[in-house]
Amino acid sequence: MNYRKLGKILGKIMILEGILMLAPLAVSLIYKENIRYILAFVVPIVALVGIGFLLQVPKPKRETFYQREGFALVAMVWIVMTLFGALPFVINKDIPNYVDACFEMMSGFTTTGSSIITDITKMSHSTLFWRSFSHWIGGMGILVFVLIFIPESNEGSSMHLLRAESPGPQVGKIVSKMKVTTRILYLIYLGMTVLEVGILMCDKPIPGYENEKFFFSLLATFGSAGTGGFGFIPGSMELFHPFSQYVIAIFLILFGCNFSLYYLILIGKVKDVLRSEEFRTYFLIIVAAVTIIFISLMTRLSQIPQAYTTEESFRHSLFQVASLMTTTGFTTTDYHVWPMTATMTLLVLMFIGAMAGSTSGGIKVSRIVLAVKGVYINNRKLINPRYVPKAKFEGKTLEEKTINDVFAFITLYFFLLLFSVLLLSFDPINGQSVTVVSDAGTYAVEHGFFSNFSAVVACLSNIGPAFEAVGPYASFAGYSYFSKILLTLLMLLGRLEILPVLILFNPKTWKKA
Amino acid sequence: MNYRKLGKILGKIMILEGILMLAPLAVSLIYKENIRYILAFVVPIVALVGIGFLLQVPKPKRETFYQREGFALVAMVWIVMTLFGALPFVINKDIPNYVDACFEMMSGFTTTGSSIITDITKMSHSTLFWRSFSHWIGGMGILVFVLIFIPESNEGSSMHLLRAESPGPQVGKIVSKMKVTTRILYLIYLGMTVLEVGILMCDKPIPGYENEKFFFSLLATFGSAGTGGFGFIPGSMELFHPFSQYVIAIFLILFGCNFSLYYLILIGKVKDVLRSEEFRTYFLIIVAAVTIIFISLMTRLSQIPQAYTTEESFRHSLFQVASLMTTTGFTTTDYHVWPMTATMTLLVLMFIGAMAGSTSGGIKVSRIVLAVKGVYINNRKLINPRYVPKAKFEGKTLEEKTINDVFAFITLYFFLLLFSVLLLSFDPINGQSVTVVSDAGTYAVEHGFFSNFSAVVACLSNIGPAFEAVGPYASFAGYSYFSKILLTLLMLLGRLEILPVLILFNPKTWKKA
Repeated sequence: MNYRKLGKILGKIMILEGILMLAPLAVSLIYKENIRYILAFVVPIVALVGIGFLLQVPKPKRETFYQREGFALVAMVWIVMTLFGALPFVINKDIPNYVDACFEMMSGFTTTGSSIITDITKMSHSTLFWRSFSHWIGGMGILVFVLIFIPESNEGSSMHLLRAESPGPQVGKIVSKMKVTTRILYLIYLGMTVLEVGILMCDKPIPGYENEKFFFSLLATFGSAGTGGFGFIPGSMELFHPFSQYVIAIFLILFGCNFSLYYLILIGKVKDVLRSEEFRTYFLIIVAAVTIIFISLMTRLSQIPQAYTTEESFRHSLFQVASLMTTTGFTTTDYHVWPMTATMTLLVLMFIGAMAGSTSGGIKVSRIVLAVKGVYINNRKLINPRYVPKAKFEGKTLEEKTINDVFAFITLYFFLLLFSVLLLSFDPINGQSVTVVSDAGTYAVEHGFFSNFSAVVACLSNIGPAFEAVGPYASFAGYSYFSKILLTLLMLLGRLEILPVLILFNPKTWKKA
Repeated sequence: MNYRKLGKILGKIMILEGILMLAPLAVSLIYKENIRYILAFVVPIVALVGIGFLLQVPKPKRETFYQREGFALVAMVWIVMTLFGALPFVINKDIPNYVDACFEMMSGFTTTGSSIITDITKMSHSTLFWRSFSHWIGGMGILVFVLIFIPESNEGSSMHLLRAESPGPQVGKIVSKMKVTTRILYLIYLGMTVLEVGILMCDKPIPGYENEKFFFSLLATFGSAGTGGFGFIPGSMELFHPFSQYVIAIFLILFGCNFSLYYLILIGKVKDVLRSEEFRTYFLIIVAAVTIIFISLMTRLSQIPQAYTTEESFRHSLFQVASLMTTTGFTTTDYHVWPMTATMTLLVLMFIGAMAGSTSGGIKVSRIVLAVKGVYINNRKLINPRYVPKAKFEGKTLEEKTINDVFAFITLYFFLLLFSVLLLSFDPINGQSVTVVSDAGTYAVEHGFFSNFSAVVACLSNIGPAFEAVGPYASFAGYSYFSKILLTLLMLLGRLEILPVLILFNPKTWKKA
């Protein structure tokens, strides 16, 4: 284990986190918050930068590192970033408990958006900013960002990091050099972020929040770019005007696309984008889901408390599909009370997630496509044992190993889901009644199986809100510390797609090779 | 496609089903049921034997058949047996609707035990007998039985059938000849059946059912031997004396073992049995689950309506674990009202199932063991790319293909589960309130997500009762025809472990090779 080299990279990331924390510090100063809020960021910044520089001192014996080191490092970085990132909330007492603060921070960085905050109106501007900003940072991956600053020579080592942190079954470079690839991706990310803020600024201000227009546009954009979904006013996006809701829904769908597709558009290869199997499937699923939910709402409109107009039914269908499929978790209405067909469609989307190489979580559309192809190939082989598969994916020959890795990933996902639901059953919250106040009225729900099951999916797929007692208008605050730590870990497992975390905690990783 | 050969085997099975129906016909005569009940079996017997003999007339051009033909045949046989086996219920009007009757019959043959009957006391003796007898027939597999009568020469072809019908990731012959293997297995099955009936006869009769002692011992044994679980008096096994409940629980665990282990015991290789990894894991899971549930019941006794004594808590824990892990579905108490930890433990067992090569359903313990080993191997390979796995399973070197097939199976299981839950959401029953009368009192539950989710697991894992509105004291009667047909298909998919059914419905199977 190349501890010195790993320490050096970890240190660099800590310094970077310190620098990034200057942004919420600035927000705190702009809004003239009291000294406690300012110190809440100053202290962690000093600690991060200090330790970060200390870690630069020992000289590494070799500059490269192995795959296992890369994987373990990625998992470690995310944990360290969360542990330090949670400090401001504890210091400024917006979230006084450290376990809660870590839950919130992990939820931020992993772009989950699940929250333990019960009254969002009591949060300071700097807290709200740091939470949403963490979505934006975590969306594209923090290590990938740091790669820009690592010397050119370690192309192989950098690739290990990219593979561990990037979502999806395969990782490709869009241009031959890693560094250039990363820069292009970040420029696209930045460009789209600026564009969304700009368009959102064109809308009327939200009544009662007239002075917050730019602040809210920024936070809404952070949440949608990172597909994170932390709310910052009561009711998530419910109070936003229809124009903003449509704009955000469309940007969510765009941020759910593989970013290399934008690169293809930039260099004029639009046809290649339209030929992409994952893109087509992604688009098809969105259209199908919106259609099913819209019809389901229209035909059973009398059964739900909200009296939607046809336009509202469509808008909420579109927004909720875009939000849950991209694993963002913003909401415009209380979907938990929707007809079962609508909620189950949303649940299936929560498993699928958006495209690989986007900022979203979940199993990813490409894995679903690959699994279906794999099942088909296996069947053909049983029908004719001499069958030689000529299957392709995105124009390239599909290797058996790729398919098997997908099967293994989905099996692991399924096992984690079941095991976590079992562990959540120990929580004393089970069976308790929770009162929900939403646009569907005030109603009581029991914290039962659906709550736990959907909570696990919401964390493992990095979505945010779930159903029932942890639905869009409820919070995760009621869970015990044990459950909160479990769910925090699930967010990390989901964001890094399980393997890096398993490798970090495998003792074999730390033995001498 | 070797239609003539397939027709010949199908015909033989139809004749066999006709012969097997003589048993319920005899029951009908013994209990002096009226002519409608007698005709209910005579008519299908005549039809089965008639068509069966007609199918023997065309001479096959070749005697062998391919793997795909074997798989398709197995799926077809189970469907045909169900379609004919359901006729008596419709003719004697115990289950007047044909869709319901097919649901019940498929539930019988696949040893599921889910029922659409709302008042079991209204059923005739012959109906009760035929239902439970179908568990016993389906448990070991009908085609495997027929193999005894197929000429020696087709060893390869027979193997295709065995592979399609036998549960588990690998199929082995315990002695070199298929026919001998099958005979040994059936003799063990028969011997254990006789033993269980004998022991159950030692118990006192159930109050109010003094004359039914032998009849009930027989039906209870059919249900436990096949791990089916159809009830035949109100409350499943609730009214049985503790002695019988313990006996049945132990036999359930025994029938959940791989039958080849009994052969090893018979030839004196007891050590080999104790060395079996699957057996050890199976046993360990049972002990762990009973312990968790027992502690959970004891510590939260005040929270559940039933006032169990310590002995009762233990007995119900043992019985329910034995029943649900072996995917039988007999119940001694209303477990739906148990603490969440207990119900979630049961839910996990419903996924796992018992050992491969037993009469149980579910994913199977061996697949779980193989999947865990596969995950470990994949991790080791990531940690050290030059790692060469030396993994073994049951003493034999573990091939990568075996592990990948397990991953593929679990992925398919998971997809089927999600897709079916989505399809069940269209049922108008969702959101309706169901009144349950059990030993926990009378209470109302809403037909919601947990009902549908557990109903799918109950059918796909061939268990029987589920939770909530389709719990141990409720029935599947309220589902729409569409849902019932879907659940019927799921039982078949579960019993044949998915692939044969996919192959039957794949057009490629029917094309000229």
